[in-house]
Amino acid sequence: MNRNMNKFEKAQKVLHEINGDGWLIICVEDSDINSRFMLGVASHARHYIYIAADGNHKVIAVEMEAPMIARSLKNKGIKAEVVSYSSMSELTTLLSSLIKKPRIALNIGEDILSPNGTAYADQIRAGDFFSMKKIAPKTEFISAAPIINKLRSVKSSEELKDLRNVCKATIELLETIPDWVKVGMTENEVKAKLEYEYMKLGEPSFPAIVGTGAHSADPHHNTSMKKIEPGVLLIDTGLQIYEMCSDITWTFWVGGKPAKEFVDAYNALYESKEVAHEFFTDGTPNNVPAKRCREYLAEKGYDHEKLFFHGYGHSLGFEAHDIGGRISWKVPDNFRLKENMVYTSEPGLYWADKWGIRLEDDVIIGKGKCEKVTYNSKDPILI
Amino acid sequence: MNRNMNKFEKAQKVLHEINGDGWLIICVEDSDINSRFMLGVASHARHYIYIAADGNHKVIAVEMEAPMIARSLKNKGIKAEVVSYSSMSELTTLLSSLIKKPRIALNIGEDILSPNGTAYADQIRAGDFFSMKKIAPKTEFISAAPIINKLRSVKSSEELKDLRNVCKATIELLETIPDWVKVGMTENEVKAKLEYEYMKLGEPSFPAIVGTGAHSADPHHNTSMKKIEPGVLLIDTGLQIYEMCSDITWTFWVGGKPAKEFVDAYNALYESKEVAHEFFTDGTPNNVPAKRCREYLAEKGYDHEKLFFHGYGHSLGFEAHDIGGRISWKVPDNFRLKENMVYTSEPGLYWADKWGIRLEDDVIIGKGKCEKVTYNSKDPILI
Repeated sequence: MNRNMNKFEKAQKVLHEINGDGWLIICVEDSDINSRFMLGVASHARHYIYIAADGNHKVIAVEMEAPMIARSLKNKGIKAEVVSYSSMSELTTLLSSLIKKPRIALNIGEDILSPNGTAYADQIRAGDFFSMKKIAPKTEFISAAPIINKLRSVKSSEELKDLRNVCKATIELLETIPDWVKVGMTENEVKAKLEYEYMKLGEPSFPAIVGTGAHSADPHHNTSMKKIEPGVLLIDTGLQIYEMCSDITWTFWVGGKPAKEFVDAYNALYESKEVAHEFFTDGTPNNVPAKRCREYLAEKGYDHEKLFFHGYGHSLGFEAHDIGGRISWKVPDNFRLKENMVYTSEPGLYWADKWGIRLEDDVIIGKGKCEKVTYNSKDPILI
Repeated sequence: MNRNMNKFEKAQKVLHEINGDGWLIICVEDSDINSRFMLGVASHARHYIYIAADGNHKVIAVEMEAPMIARSLKNKGIKAEVVSYSSMSELTTLLSSLIKKPRIALNIGEDILSPNGTAYADQIRAGDFFSMKKIAPKTEFISAAPIINKLRSVKSSEELKDLRNVCKATIELLETIPDWVKVGMTENEVKAKLEYEYMKLGEPSFPAIVGTGAHSADPHHNTSMKKIEPGVLLIDTGLQIYEMCSDITWTFWVGGKPAKEFVDAYNALYESKEVAHEFFTDGTPNNVPAKRCREYLAEKGYDHEKLFFHGYGHSLGFEAHDIGGRISWKVPDNFRLKENMVYTSEPGLYWADKWGIRLEDDVIIGKGKCEKVTYNSKDPILI
């Protein structure tokens, strides 16, 4: 796509390709992340964004948020009329004038429970969908999946530049961890201190996972008031600056000499990633890097089916879990990596009630090679 | 309700009242807050919570999150089987066995665009709804609005205790603001410092709004890199500890003697709240406190229709915007306040491109009186 097109213009182009008259995003209390993606600002009250095939774009928002939205669009050079509503009947009239057209795209996912489905586009809520059907019973509502996919899965050169910046900033903060994390601090304190630094630059891209000891064996552990103890410390965290996120996991050893079985597993994981990264290339099926990683772990004697029970990586960008098929040995062959997609690379090995290790980096898919924009230490970092 | 019943048992009781066979919560990437409300832990991957009328409750989660969920339920004394799935076809089979029953409640909102609708229950996404219809075409799917309303709108004595605690902790932190906020710090730095303190105790209940100067005139301003300047500083922020949130706005004057028109407007707002609080009582229509506040502001010469363009208050609890009709002059008479509901009280006056003032407190509805669990200073606080 032409890099000088703004997001509204890009969406308008895809609308023409799918013969849509408009794309309506419905968002209330941050229910659809695509709102912030399109507006460049978070609007919390019920609002509607209408991208029109004929270019007469419109945003319908409450009076208390409309001026803020108008300013954000103006700053981005986007031409769209921002109108406000003060009652539900007024809102209904405004919507009616927009969606009584032959074909309107909504953020509906299709075949949610199929591996080839478009669950990623499924943002509109059931009641909202029914309300649209009621207002415009003759309109054909189609899925906006092709628009969302086009706008968000392959990154522009500007987005990749922002990605490199946010990854660099995150790594610089992670490198300070051994200087200030101490036995006896709570997991929450470690999270708070890290995210305090993030907030000076942007926002955490998700609540950091800080898992001490056996907590590290829960890949999605909820950071708690437990005190850091000697042994394994897993930190999975990311920063968002403007519109790009990082997502990184480092696994440390706290206090003294690390256990041999920890070091062995750490090294095997590190090496398995190196093997996998050879396949982070344009045109490769998404399942290949995961399979190569698992083969390597099996060679090293690890029962990967039991110990590594999650996917290998996910798309990364505007969201920490962004648009695009996962990298996993379970993904069908028809999912292929494309140049300038961005993925996490995060194999893990977990022993329940004991400890877990995950080494997560962020990688840009290239032609015949990839670009690692973050790094994990080759050897365990000691605290 | 019996205070010894756990949330699953309470939901089961309401299921009997509405002749439902089960209540299915579908959650992916935190799409339905009712998941964390029921489980006591945030699960991020696609998962399903099934509360059964016959007591055979079940949670279906991915392998990497199932043990964490099982432990949380056990800690809360909730009996539910936690099963994991590793493929979409396995998931479909599991769901099929649960929802092929006569009447299943889903988190669907009804009449979204009507003031008497149940948009608050609208959490399930359209594609997910279609997938349920496909799996169980003969099942009658009903809205879970009565269950959600019963569980969350009127607070238990334990929840009110937690509310008082979280409000006290928040106020203690807000009281320190004049000690450390300085001209020249960015809005983001002020937010970061405050939320760092929150994270030692819990989590921010929403991203703090820090608005300096003209930014204070945007009620939902997105905190930015702008530096604090002399004049108005509006901070709207809240803390969540375990399962209760605070939500408080203080408006400060930075640097020297405050402008007379600021002080006058501040005083009028403060007094208008005092008037409104007389009507924060069991059985009062939700629109009454808002009307009384606006009448007072009009008497004082403020054009409230132009300058106060948002609702008077919202329900507060597990979420900063919790379940329950708003307090607003525009809400129909049939919405009534009930004892032990919790509301924000947050009138504001905003002059575009100049400044805004909002004074927000949290209040428990009582019989013939209310309990203010936070306070705003009677006179503007100077920094």
